[in-house]
Amino acid sequence: MNTAKQQLPREFELIARYFRRPVVDPAVLIGSGDDAALVMPSGSVALSTDTLVTGVHFLDTIAPERLGWRALAVNLSDMAAMGARPRWFTLALTLPHSNPDWLNSFAEGLYACAESFDISLIGGDVTAGPLCLSVHIAGEVAGTDVLKRAGAQPGDGIFVTGSIGDAAAGLQIATSETAATPDARFLLDRYEIPTPRIEAGLALRGLASAAIDISDGLVADLGRLCAASACGARIDVAHLPLSKALQSYVVEKSAREFALCGGDDYELCFTAPKAATAQLAVVFESLSVEVTQIGECVSGERIDCHLNRKPFPVPEKGYEHFR
Amino acid sequence: MNTAKQQLPREFELIARYFRRPVVDPAVLIGSGDDAALVMPSGSVALSTDTLVTGVHFLDTIAPERLGWRALAVNLSDMAAMGARPRWFTLALTLPHSNPDWLNSFAEGLYACAESFDISLIGGDVTAGPLCLSVHIAGEVAGTDVLKRAGAQPGDGIFVTGSIGDAAAGLQIATSETAATPDARFLLDRYEIPTPRIEAGLALRGLASAAIDISDGLVADLGRLCAASACGARIDVAHLPLSKALQSYVVEKSAREFALCGGDDYELCFTAPKAATAQLAVVFESLSVEVTQIGECVSGERIDCHLNRKPFPVPEKGYEHFR
Repeated sequence: MNTAKQQLPREFELIARYFRRPVVDPAVLIGSGDDAALVMPSGSVALSTDTLVTGVHFLDTIAPERLGWRALAVNLSDMAAMGARPRWFTLALTLPHSNPDWLNSFAEGLYACAESFDISLIGGDVTAGPLCLSVHIAGEVAGTDVLKRAGAQPGDGIFVTGSIGDAAAGLQIATSETAATPDARFLLDRYEIPTPRIEAGLALRGLASAAIDISDGLVADLGRLCAASACGARIDVAHLPLSKALQSYVVEKSAREFALCGGDDYELCFTAPKAATAQLAVVFESLSVEVTQIGECVSGERIDCHLNRKPFPVPEKGYEHFR
Repeated sequence: MNTAKQQLPREFELIARYFRRPVVDPAVLIGSGDDAALVMPSGSVALSTDTLVTGVHFLDTIAPERLGWRALAVNLSDMAAMGARPRWFTLALTLPHSNPDWLNSFAEGLYACAESFDISLIGGDVTAGPLCLSVHIAGEVAGTDVLKRAGAQPGDGIFVTGSIGDAAAGLQIATSETAATPDARFLLDRYEIPTPRIEAGLALRGLASAAIDISDGLVADLGRLCAASACGARIDVAHLPLSKALQSYVVEKSAREFALCGGDDYELCFTAPKAATAQLAVVFESLSVEVTQIGECVSGERIDCHLNRKPFPVPEKGYEHFR
């Protein structure tokens, strides 16, 4: 009768078992297995969703446990960019076939990330179709004071966490070679299994004037922040935080281009008034997270990159998403 | 650099415009356009997700405005089955190409459903890939008293809202012919643009002992309710509510099989103690929603169907999901 649903092999019902580990969070009143989950938030709730499609957001060569981590981590990064505490997520998994080994490994990676960030899987569905992962995440915010893209003012400093450009190099490694050296493995990890900056996002509430996570590249994402804030930006290319691994992998000019235009780093880019600079240093010291000022908000709407007081040309394709 | 993301044509950024209508709900503190949305719930929050894939959950011949309605309606049905008030949703849309006419029509259908049920689109993403729609929905529950699948007791009556089996006939019409008569159009509508039973779900809180929505067929979904409640069921086939359209479309035996095994009706199936029967009649009268007792919970774990005190055989494929 329901010809459509009958295309689903019986294993798809079994698959659900891979994603039904016990939930210990007392705020989860009903978890997986009913028509919906029920949670009891203690404040306002941040909600976002991000979809990963094979060949678009990940290569089909990625190990399933890394894909599991990645699917959740890129969504956690959105919570970080809002300064929200991630709490609960659902997973909509579309799979061309059910392979128990693949599913088991995928679930291992997913739960490893969930446990690292103390977040509970509370539902979802598994469907037959082309591989596609959609995670929906919910986080808590005490009060309503979040990090927004809007709020940056001319004169505010522009900062990034960690190092940037690594993931772009990691993608290049993933598509072209085996990661044989420690540097190459570091860069590949940065691409495949990013670390969302949850604690940094939480600490930035009340300090940052605006924030975004870097998923499409610094220039593209800072461009969105500036558009929302109605300001421009001046980036000092000499100050871009480049990892030692990236610097040993490519020449300096390429490393800087990777840092400006490469996506997938999932570091935070934020702005803060000059008066907050000293406090920022203290906060990030206590978090053991690197933070670097890379420029300043300016009036206008342009994002200009400079090196030694001369314009630094940004590769065209870096603007693909920005314009 | 980010080869993956560069496969996304620029139009995909424009597409977001189709899904950015103003939100009037004052509980939406931040809507689409930031890293996450922010909402202020007044009680506990019900969360669920449902994915629709071409060829699995809908035919590629469905009109885009109907698909837009359907994508949201099947998710609203999960809120109905919990007795939750749906409030906010995000949409993860994966599209093989961006066709402005298609998107405009899809958005029309999606927003028509959203406005009918007073629910706000607060975020999502659009990705290049095989057509796949994933809706994540959040609803409010005053207190923590929801409708669960567990809770039915032997002796409780088994009820369904509306009529069932229509959508299975509608699917048959959609795959084989043009809906030329009013009856055929009614059945096709029942399949393509279902009506989630939100008000009925809300009214059933405190009255029903267990509830589920019928997406995979009465026998399959009642089977899940019974499994969660640790009881069996006896269905009186003579009492199945069959629409006039269904009865004129197929012979009675087939209509009954459609009602037992056909999916996609998105009616509610619920159980209630005998003492609640009179009050149920009053409640459903006031909602102008048909409700029919179709059987009774029994001890054991079997779902038995009877007609005139004889076993009524359920077509094998009806159990595809049930076992």
